[in-house]
Amino acid sequence: MTENSLRIGLIGTGRIGQVHAANIAANPDASLSRVADPFIDGARGVAERFGGRATADPDEIFAADDVDAVLIASPTPTHVGLIEKAVDRGIPVLCEKPIDLDIARVEALRPKITAAGVPVALGFNRRFDPAFAEVRARVAAGEIGALEQLTIISRDPAAPPADYIALSGGIFRDMTIHDFDMARFFLPDIVEVSAVGTTMFDAGARAHGDFDTAVVTLTAATGAVVTIINSRHSAVGYDQRIEAFGSGGSLQVANRSTSLVSHSSAARVEARAPYEDFFLQRYAEAYAAELTSFIALARGGASDSSSFEDGRAALILADAAQRSAQEHAAVTVRFA
Amino acid sequence: MTENSLRIGLIGTGRIGQVHAANIAANPDASLSRVADPFIDGARGVAERFGGRATADPDEIFAADDVDAVLIASPTPTHVGLIEKAVDRGIPVLCEKPIDLDIARVEALRPKITAAGVPVALGFNRRFDPAFAEVRARVAAGEIGALEQLTIISRDPAAPPADYIALSGGIFRDMTIHDFDMARFFLPDIVEVSAVGTTMFDAGARAHGDFDTAVVTLTAATGAVVTIINSRHSAVGYDQRIEAFGSGGSLQVANRSTSLVSHSSAARVEARAPYEDFFLQRYAEAYAAELTSFIALARGGASDSSSFEDGRAALILADAAQRSAQEHAAVTVRFA
Amino acid sequence: MTENSLRIGLIGTGRIGQVHAANIAANPDASLSRVADPFIDGARGVAERFGGRATADPDEIFAADDVDAVLIASPTPTHVGLIEKAVDRGIPVLCEKPIDLDIARVEALRPKITAAGVPVALGFNRRFDPAFAEVRARVAAGEIGALEQLTIISRDPAAPPADYIALSGGIFRDMTIHDFDMARFFLPDIVEVSAVGTTMFDAGARAHGDFDTAVVTLTAATGAVVTIINSRHSAVGYDQRIEAFGSGGSLQVANRSTSLVSHSSAARVEARAPYEDFFLQRYAEAYAAELTSFIALARGGASDSSSFEDGRAALILADAAQRSAQEHAAVTVRFA
Amino acid sequence: MTENSLRIGLIGTGRIGQVHAANIAANPDASLSRVADPFIDGARGVAERFGGRATADPDEIFAADDVDAVLIASPTPTHVGLIEKAVDRGIPVLCEKPIDLDIARVEALRPKITAAGVPVALGFNRRFDPAFAEVRARVAAGEIGALEQLTIISRDPAAPPADYIALSGGIFRDMTIHDFDMARFFLPDIVEVSAVGTTMFDAGARAHGDFDTAVVTLTAATGAVVTIINSRHSAVGYDQRIEAFGSGGSLQVANRSTSLVSHSSAARVEARAPYEDFFLQRYAEAYAAELTSFIALARGGASDSSSFEDGRAALILADAAQRSAQEHAAVTVRFA
Repeated sequence: MTENSLRIGLIGTGRIGQVHAANIAANPDASLSRVADPFIDGARGVAERFGGRATADPDEIFAADDVDAVLIASPTPTHVGLIEKAVDRGIPVLCEKPIDLDIARVEALRPKITAAGVPVALGFNRRFDPAFAEVRARVAAGEIGALEQLTIISRDPAAPPADYIALSGGIFRDMTIHDFDMARFFLPDIVEVSAVGTTMFDAGARAHGDFDTAVVTLTAATGAVVTIINSRHSAVGYDQRIEAFGSGGSLQVANRSTSLVSHSSAARVEARAPYEDFFLQRYAEAYAAELTSFIALARGGASDSSSFEDGRAALILADAAQRSAQEHAAVTVRFA
Repeated sequence: MTENSLRIGLIGTGRIGQVHAANIAANPDASLSRVADPFIDGARGVAERFGGRATADPDEIFAADDVDAVLIASPTPTHVGLIEKAVDRGIPVLCEKPIDLDIARVEALRPKITAAGVPVALGFNRRFDPAFAEVRARVAAGEIGALEQLTIISRDPAAPPADYIALSGGIFRDMTIHDFDMARFFLPDIVEVSAVGTTMFDAGARAHGDFDTAVVTLTAATGAVVTIINSRHSAVGYDQRIEAFGSGGSLQVANRSTSLVSHSSAARVEARAPYEDFFLQRYAEAYAAELTSFIALARGGASDSSSFEDGRAALILADAAQRSAQEHAAVTVRFA
Repeated sequence: MTENSLRIGLIGTGRIGQVHAANIAANPDASLSRVADPFIDGARGVAERFGGRATADPDEIFAADDVDAVLIASPTPTHVGLIEKAVDRGIPVLCEKPIDLDIARVEALRPKITAAGVPVALGFNRRFDPAFAEVRARVAAGEIGALEQLTIISRDPAAPPADYIALSGGIFRDMTIHDFDMARFFLPDIVEVSAVGTTMFDAGARAHGDFDTAVVTLTAATGAVVTIINSRHSAVGYDQRIEAFGSGGSLQVANRSTSLVSHSSAARVEARAPYEDFFLQRYAEAYAAELTSFIALARGGASDSSSFEDGRAALILADAAQRSAQEHAAVTVRFA
Repeated sequence: MTENSLRIGLIGTGRIGQVHAANIAANPDASLSRVADPFIDGARGVAERFGGRATADPDEIFAADDVDAVLIASPTPTHVGLIEKAVDRGIPVLCEKPIDLDIARVEALRPKITAAGVPVALGFNRRFDPAFAEVRARVAAGEIGALEQLTIISRDPAAPPADYIALSGGIFRDMTIHDFDMARFFLPDIVEVSAVGTTMFDAGARAHGDFDTAVVTLTAATGAVVTIINSRHSAVGYDQRIEAFGSGGSLQVANRSTSLVSHSSAARVEARAPYEDFFLQRYAEAYAAELTSFIALARGGASDSSSFEDGRAALILADAAQRSAQEHAAVTVRFA
């Protein structure tokens, strides 16, 4: 923290809120000035460890004079209301994904966001993963020629509890939404969505009519095709790979083993330790870089962050995938 | 060649016919007794190098008393007629893929094949690739638990000439058909096909209304999902990978570099030589193993070869993919 | 920092002193209470960033009542005197390697260290590298059976300036000394040293009669053989690999690329970014873990740190290697 | 075989003799005309399978008028006498390594070889391994700048029987001799040898005063240093790696797994099948290429084959290593 630190008010102190709090405290250009959570013990614990004053009431944050920006890490149904309050007060916002599970609420908020010109960033952290960001930059620099196919393999280590599934909006809105944003990070102009979903192993998904296994293809206006391969579980650990295939070559992001050590024996050779457990480990650097980028954005600079428009587009794609999987037909999309 | 060699009559002496001729000559349990090609110089050249008597007329092969089995490597439109003649004479057949580009002709031939009980194998050589066969065996042995997702990446090094495209039946019937058979090698019971095709780079494909870029998803009766990613070109060489993902782990087949050497410099590390050029190199062992398996089949044994039924199923999937890509909707398939 | 933090006095604020200062500040169980450097601006800069009071005089640190432990990162010739002062005052010490370039000074100090019983740790940070520590633990657990061969490849990215070489004590005492300690981390009981050194590229080494290229073999009492391969430069970046080869298999530590991305093109496939630049990057985690271990040691706990005896043994091996390379004969060593 | 085939007489029909016989039969430019082995059943078996007339008496081969070249694959003690006979008759020779275990016999034969000008090639097959040959060519082309360090890891899968050890001449003359030749393939002008040998696991080696574990360093006239790491056993299979390290980068030859498949599970990821068993598998292509090169040599062309001089140099290095390991001192060598 320095004198010129961006003073951030954090709303929500669950798992992801704590990640953000730690990153704010560690960032030389930011400080945690306020921490809100209706579960006041959560707010107090975070404030004690990372700074700021705790409150149970988010509205205190919007009223405070020591809040330059707001970070929203509260439950999804609160996002729209909190974004609106921030924008009304002209406070830059970084809001966790998704904006909402209901596109109608997003559309209702949209004109105000557009009119206000207040920076609103969506927490699609993977854009800030050093490897994915590197691939995008190298594709943009023409290193593989025209981008023709993008393949995203994204599998969580284990399915969430059935109650979580019940409120999640389904695999496309809850899990694939990250991959939709990643697809648009490379190819913003998606025109068609085709999705297949099945339920092979997860009782929770089956109980709530959701899928645990899904493949989505997105067609870009250029003719490039994105393939997203999802599973709600992965025995080998968090599986997060990308291949950008172009006319002149390809760029691949491999999984990161938890160790540099490989083991060879009579049974097998060059075996490595399983991949990193889950997103908090795999994307630790991404969360920190996302914050740094948001600080720049809040101060009027440029940012690679997903914008409100990007968050809306990801939800449109998720809705389209859901419909496609249910109707067994491709769905045309338009973001305008 | 030994006294008990299976005496094979070869029809067609183009590129793939020559591969088969060389393998027959090298196989201790087979010999080349007849070689037919209307282009008689082709037939003569092959006979001189690999044995057998040359003829311009395939019918001589069916009439000969020194032909125990027939290998059909002539142009696709001749396949149905030649298979029928062989079956009528009770001669086991190994026929290059596909049976035909028109499912109606396949259906018309089908009852005779079923009734005759003469072994008919289709030349889906990839089933005999040591790596793919190993993965299938290990999946069957339960090494990765239930098979949930199969991902097939299959890209040719370069698009074929426009005239070839014109007669090819389109990418799904010409190129993806190998991947359809591979999908069914793991998951025979496919129930739905969804395909996306675009044309990004190949003028020949564009001229003939074909795709050069395609992604197909197949849903199996078990709920497992197969993803096939195709391109008509690949700057890095022939790209042939498979990942079988199961409840307990995964098995992957990597591309094979043409060298064991890797190079490191200030610019980049661990760089390897490009992948093998094309199918004749990559699948050399597969063609030899396919022949060995066919010899066993012709002698009444079991074989992992694709059968006539498998060849028909692959064409049904190709037709479904073509329709799905054109109609932008999933297509239900039944093989019964 | 907490109330129970170990209050550390840091002596020396050069490159490595700054690494330690940052780690002390970041460690929840330590705090920087004093910072000494005759170059007082260096001391002040570090104190401002990481805490503590700055002084030009190290003796102030030994007189202070807020110093629970001392970290010595000053130039090598000062080490013996500073260790002695700390031990005289009963203050635990973590001293950068080597103890001294002159074994006679080390031997003169040794009885006092032995008698005092004050914890003295040497800064052989690589013992705390997660990958090397993992290999040692797995070897100790019997995962590869009896350890028969240990191969250490250790190449710096670029040769140091000629003035540095002049005062370095030579490649074995300056650079290989890390590898000697690593060898003894696995096989403490070395009985013979054989070394070859040549000068191929570095004018500074040539000017000062030093080597820039060296290979050392160490024979352990068990018969196991350690091979150390050194170079003062490496075009591909800092090259730090280990292979432990045992009767039942092997464990290898690979270099760490700076990126998860690989690039494939028509010219080459699977090329990765160069390795991490140098020790500050490669061993960042090791320095932090070394400090944590030293905190435990200073508080009376056990530690994997190199002890004074280990530091002395490494110097004995370096001296033996120097003599072996000059006399072209193996040198027997005894540590007792 | 064609009319212009080089007619080869093979002496010795043990394991390696059979490899050569098969390669001769498969080579379009060679034929097997005579096969000699005092164990006449061995000779007959090979002649039946691969052609030629069998005899128990090698002298018949030298007297025959249908022998253009001789391939000697008989026991080592017979090599010198058989090479001499061939040279006396002006018949080109490819002789298995080593020339002899006794340098005195080699020196005695040397003037005759030099004077005769008859091509004599030594069977150091690894020079023809595609990967090693590629690395040498790329080093020669300057791809890694000046060659500074060459590291050869060479471990057999399992120790030979004790009786074999008894007659082998010791690990350096029997096993390392291949690595000495490989070292000279890159750096012919070796000036000093330093070797360490221990006996860790093999009772046969212990019984006969031999080593089962060895490390040899060779210094080239340029200052480049070669490190050879040997073991008589390797749990993971035949371990044959090379790293050429130069001023501008490095080239590495990896081991070749027996499969393209990798397996990932919760316990470990990317595990591959063990390496190829032993030299007959690993160097199959090298043996065939060695023969092709010898055919060119016998016909007056150039060849990368080891010459008689190379074979002599390898033995000089082996003798020096043996002495160095016994005397614990470096040994200077001169080949002139």
